[in-house]
Amino acid sequence: MSPRTTGPETRSRLLDAAAECFARDGYDATGVAEICATAGLSKGGFYHHFPSKQAVFLALLDRWLALLDEQLLLVSQQSGNAAEAMRSIAGLSRLVFQSASGQLPMFLEFWNQSAHDPTVWKTTIAPYQRYREFFGLLIETGVAEGTFRDADPKAAGPVLVALAVGILLQGLMDPEGADWSAVLEHGVDLLIRGMHSEV
Amino acid sequence: MSPRTTGPETRSRLLDAAAECFARDGYDATGVAEICATAGLSKGGFYHHFPSKQAVFLALLDRWLALLDEQLLLVSQQSGNAAEAMRSIAGLSRLVFQSASGQLPMFLEFWNQSAHDPTVWKTTIAPYQRYREFFGLLIETGVAEGTFRDADPKAAGPVLVALAVGILLQGLMDPEGADWSAVLEHGVDLLIRGMHSEV
Repeated sequence: MSPRTTGPETRSRLLDAAAECFARDGYDATGVAEICATAGLSKGGFYHHFPSKQAVFLALLDRWLALLDEQLLLVSQQSGNAAEAMRSIAGLSRLVFQSASGQLPMFLEFWNQSAHDPTVWKTTIAPYQRYREFFGLLIETGVAEGTFRDADPKAAGPVLVALAVGILLQGLMDPEGADWSAVLEHGVDLLIRGMHSEV
Repeated sequence: MSPRTTGPETRSRLLDAAAECFARDGYDATGVAEICATAGLSKGGFYHHFPSKQAVFLALLDRWLALLDEQLLLVSQQSGNAAEAMRSIAGLSRLVFQSASGQLPMFLEFWNQSAHDPTVWKTTIAPYQRYREFFGLLIETGVAEGTFRDADPKAAGPVLVALAVGILLQGLMDPEGADWSAVLEHGVDLLIRGMHSEV
């Protein structure tokens, strides 16, 4: 295998090719062969970077979540307090809907396969746990700074993540059913007020 | 076709047989032939009642939701006000988790197929719209009776449904990740307080 096929550039090229194939043909109909052909690489090059098609999907998801994490951190840092941070994060939902739009069938195909593989499934659900902790910490900060006078971070973190997941899923299932970004903003507003914030 | 295969009893027998097959073999691996064999009926009998396997799955879901609706109505009627009703409804979540436990793979298989069929998909998402309206009405009642002093029923109905959907999905994806019924109860409590209820 030439060094050309083992570096991070090749990995990135494979990810781009996989994203293109998954978006065009769906997850089930895409094979490692198609990803390699699109990337202009051999199967050896693919398997140097990823053990399977599921692994490349999870890596794509990771790359997308890393972008989201950057945004989360940025708006958190730019906010004056935890309530303001939560409102700004809710404001990111339009971007999230934009990039996830039309991708529900692809996710359903992936989840459908992953549900039968405990190792892949563990990786699939790990980000949700991470976000529950992130929001728990944000609420803890809000309690410490006096923004939330009546909040239980351990309990409210999962509430926020579940609300976001529920709205994202409903928004992808039924885009015309509601103004989903407005629903998220209203829900976050109610939760903030429920934690007895005057901000 | 004998009258014996066209009545409501036969329909119910087919539903029971389908539930048994789906639970045992999954949605994808179950065919109309297996459902008929389990029910001890001919394919003619099946197609008299259901146009397709998807239709029998949707009818099963309807039957299950009808039981849930009965419970929703009962606890609403037994509650002194809208906040109490919302708390009692959240308390039903343990029952919902019990009956949905382990069924995520089956739902993923069904959704995966339905996402490619606009007519079936429309029926799939209809219950969510119905629940958004149900909770909108409940909040409207709460505003009228003075329980919620600061609520927008049209906006808060979808928030409640999204929270429930998000928690149900997360709870089925990651049963050990949290005490999901407690998360729902905490979330509903925060939302009730956010709507400025003192109850």
